[in-house]
Amino acid sequence: MAHEFPETPLNKVKRLPEKGHYDAASIYAVVDAALICSVGYVIDGQVYVTPTMHARDGDQILLHGSRASRMLRHLDGGGAVCISVTIADALVLARSIFEHSMNYRSATLFGHGTPVVGSAARRAALQMFAERMIPGRWNDARQPDEGELKQTTIVAVPIESAAAKIADGMPTDNDADMDYPVWAGIIPMHHSYGVPVADPRTQPERPLPEYLRGFASA
Amino acid sequence: MAHEFPETPLNKVKRLPEKGHYDAASIYAVVDAALICSVGYVIDGQVYVTPTMHARDGDQILLHGSRASRMLRHLDGGGAVCISVTIADALVLARSIFEHSMNYRSATLFGHGTPVVGSAARRAALQMFAERMIPGRWNDARQPDEGELKQTTIVAVPIESAAAKIADGMPTDNDADMDYPVWAGIIPMHHSYGVPVADPRTQPERPLPEYLRGFASA
Repeated sequence: MAHEFPETPLNKVKRLPEKGHYDAASIYAVVDAALICSVGYVIDGQVYVTPTMHARDGDQILLHGSRASRMLRHLDGGGAVCISVTIADALVLARSIFEHSMNYRSATLFGHGTPVVGSAARRAALQMFAERMIPGRWNDARQPDEGELKQTTIVAVPIESAAAKIADGMPTDNDADMDYPVWAGIIPMHHSYGVPVADPRTQPERPLPEYLRGFASA
Repeated sequence: MAHEFPETPLNKVKRLPEKGHYDAASIYAVVDAALICSVGYVIDGQVYVTPTMHARDGDQILLHGSRASRMLRHLDGGGAVCISVTIADALVLARSIFEHSMNYRSATLFGHGTPVVGSAARRAALQMFAERMIPGRWNDARQPDEGELKQTTIVAVPIESAAAKIADGMPTDNDADMDYPVWAGIIPMHHSYGVPVADPRTQPERPLPEYLRGFASA
């Protein structure tokens, strides 16, 4: 994945171009750090944005869900999408209100959908989703049967163009504001997991599996 | 805000309709709980999704940023958008892989942009953004001057149609899976603030203002 996406009018970071990244490694690091993305698409001239879980398989994004999903039907038929991933990292409190902002990592990907076909490829995709959510889960839970596989639409979006935009660090104020008598700095934002909560309908209660023990001490 | 958005083909929650909400109170609770949204729009037939901070003023969403922003120019000119807000609340680990999912709160809003004009309205909008980020900040930091106001595009999106979709609770497995020998339950996801980090360029260091002390014990 040591490649670059060419800068074109489609993916060029216009605002604050110094924060733009076009190498796959930087872009995919953002994509992989988030569990959910926002998928933008157009049907009959109307724009929609749908949040969904994603996985990445090399240079393509995998999406899955119900056959009834409008977004997945669009992609299954080859429709175009813009996929956005954003992770908020900090509030940035500058001396001036004007320079207040957030630190974040975002990625924007462009492509068209294509169905993932074949039982092996489809099962492999579902395994990627499960293992990305919880490594170790696929082999412990009940794996999908043929009926469930049939009910699931799985699509791939080969990434045709992409960019990341990353804002970090301390506020950037004008020199004239640096001595303004106000506290300035950042407030980090954390995204973490809490202690697993067992479904009380499981009786007797089962021990937490090994692969979930890291969450219990979160 | 005790009103409902009519269910139409645009906003109807098709997948898992029992999770859909159309009353403004439910929708706005989701909108207000998130600092950032994903804005979908179409320019020259190409769909884009741009993450940005938002504020809500009654039945309209406020967005702001640089005059150079493609998204804001589109909205300033009356363009159509779909605005999506998503908060991930938990991983849902069912007995079957098929029923694995996430708990989340999401809102989808549809509308067209309109410029916010007039110095008082524009300053009031910027104050809403600052106070939403950090209550108390507006009166402490240096407020925008005329030049900064001129560089900032501020748009309103009156909400024409909207829905929320909320998934919570324990996994829903088939009866036949309830005794499958696997741990099932949820892993909560937390979004929190860390201890404020002062910009080291402020010398001598200033005390943390009263309105930030709550963050320090986060």
